[in-house]
Amino acid sequence: MIRIGLVGVGKIARDQHIPALAADARYQLVAAASRTKPDLGVLPVFQDIEEMLAQGPALDAVALCTPPQARRETALAALRAGKHVFLEKPPGASVGEVAELAAVARAQGVVLFTSWHSRFAAGVAPAKAWLSTRRVREVAIEWREDVRRWHPGQTWIWEAGGLGVFDPAINALSILTEILPTEAFVTGATLQVPENVQSPVAAHVDMTNLDGARITADLDFLQTGPQTWDLTAQTDDGVLKLSMGGAELTLDGQPVEVGENHEYPGLYDRFATLIARGESEVDARPLTLVADAFLLGTRESVEAFVE
Amino acid sequence: MIRIGLVGVGKIARDQHIPALAADARYQLVAAASRTKPDLGVLPVFQDIEEMLAQGPALDAVALCTPPQARRETALAALRAGKHVFLEKPPGASVGEVAELAAVARAQGVVLFTSWHSRFAAGVAPAKAWLSTRRVREVAIEWREDVRRWHPGQTWIWEAGGLGVFDPAINALSILTEILPTEAFVTGATLQVPENVQSPVAAHVDMTNLDGARITADLDFLQTGPQTWDLTAQTDDGVLKLSMGGAELTLDGQPVEVGENHEYPGLYDRFATLIARGESEVDARPLTLVADAFLLGTRESVEAFVE
Repeated sequence: MIRIGLVGVGKIARDQHIPALAADARYQLVAAASRTKPDLGVLPVFQDIEEMLAQGPALDAVALCTPPQARRETALAALRAGKHVFLEKPPGASVGEVAELAAVARAQGVVLFTSWHSRFAAGVAPAKAWLSTRRVREVAIEWREDVRRWHPGQTWIWEAGGLGVFDPAINALSILTEILPTEAFVTGATLQVPENVQSPVAAHVDMTNLDGARITADLDFLQTGPQTWDLTAQTDDGVLKLSMGGAELTLDGQPVEVGENHEYPGLYDRFATLIARGESEVDARPLTLVADAFLLGTRESVEAFVE
Repeated sequence: MIRIGLVGVGKIARDQHIPALAADARYQLVAAASRTKPDLGVLPVFQDIEEMLAQGPALDAVALCTPPQARRETALAALRAGKHVFLEKPPGASVGEVAELAAVARAQGVVLFTSWHSRFAAGVAPAKAWLSTRRVREVAIEWREDVRRWHPGQTWIWEAGGLGVFDPAINALSILTEILPTEAFVTGATLQVPENVQSPVAAHVDMTNLDGARITADLDFLQTGPQTWDLTAQTDDGVLKLSMGGAELTLDGQPVEVGENHEYPGLYDRFATLIARGESEVDARPLTLVADAFLLGTRESVEAFVE
């Protein structure tokens, strides 16, 4: 039994982490920490990780669901206390930080897991298998959603380091880096940044890989009506399309039966397996793609964003 | 004898590469490529690397001195033609690109060298040795120079991917990553970007490391009068100061005799050694620090820059 504590009791913790943990017999959720001290019934809730570690029940692992900008100190406290650590995506506020957390986990002999939930969407594993024997010529990512609908009140998204439209779009990049047989890298970007915030509301990213594939990402945070989370890959032997964030797969226009989506149960299954093996899984590639888009990108100032 | 070709005959090639190669008996500079086709006396000059590889004399190695935004295709052409490659700093336009170039060099069995000239400044090796036995509490980088004096007409610096004030400041970061016993990573930044260009003219970067050191960088591209290229480290056992870009070293205020500065001769000595050993040296850490500063940084729009 893995006794686990949750830090950060926001939308993602309530919607996903708590139900996934409740459904997995290998875990026992024994404590939470949140500055707002929400009522979670019988679960003891502490002010922060330091209080949870000092005064709470014994823990084997900690899952961190706080925004990325302030997660490093929490992750360090957990790792240095000898706890296995599950990091929500993105795994850090900077690429360098993630490498350092990995070094601490190694030194402490504990497991660090940089979770990317979209990689556990139902269509992703079959998509990866299908692409593994084909040459990819072109990939088009379209990730268009309504920030007001999916991220109400999440002002941290707009602050420096909050990633803006890349907060959802990093899910697409986590799928891309998982399924593409040859590594993608950024060659250019355009970032549209509302004049009153720090992070982009829309973006176009150009990427390629050593096979010379043309890889693009079109991202929009103001899409009303139907929402689009699609990745389409043209290969030398057919066309693959993942839609609904990876939940649905078509090959040459034919739907493929991929079963139900179990992203967070999949993540916690992987985390339990990693803990049993004593192996970390640290992958900062999606975040590196975002950092490179920020490094290389041309910025355009656009209309103020008002929620 | 290493037969070498030079791509990009701008200021740095004329000021540094050509004299360093002329002075090193292990090299023979046999060709150059530059879109402007400058007159280099007896040296044959080609339009671009493709023409140089196809029509020029036999080459063992290529040194790339073109701006980072357009260097990838040139580097790939050289590596794929089986040439050892010396990359001017920064080694690529993106962090991901550098990793991919390294993969190609491995696959081709040739040497890739990501050069960081400031690491060969006279004070850097003794500074590294001195710090290796001490605990660093604080590092302050001050890098203030006059862009109009040192980068006349280099408009690529201001374009997206040109790095702006980080073009010189990445030299400081290359020293920092070389001499610091514990890896630094970015925790925050402020970037001042002139309203008419894409890249910052000034910046403040906050970093730390796993020892909890306070590491800051203050960067300015509009410094007239005396120019400042200083790095000061407070340790548990004295204060180290590198100045003049690493050329001068003082320990607790006492100047240390470090000899003459031989940055580019040092780089070409290292490159020859790497070629003799068949070993690449690829280090993207300074560029990762810049990408993280762009990812995390708060941007402020400032007065237009007019050269």
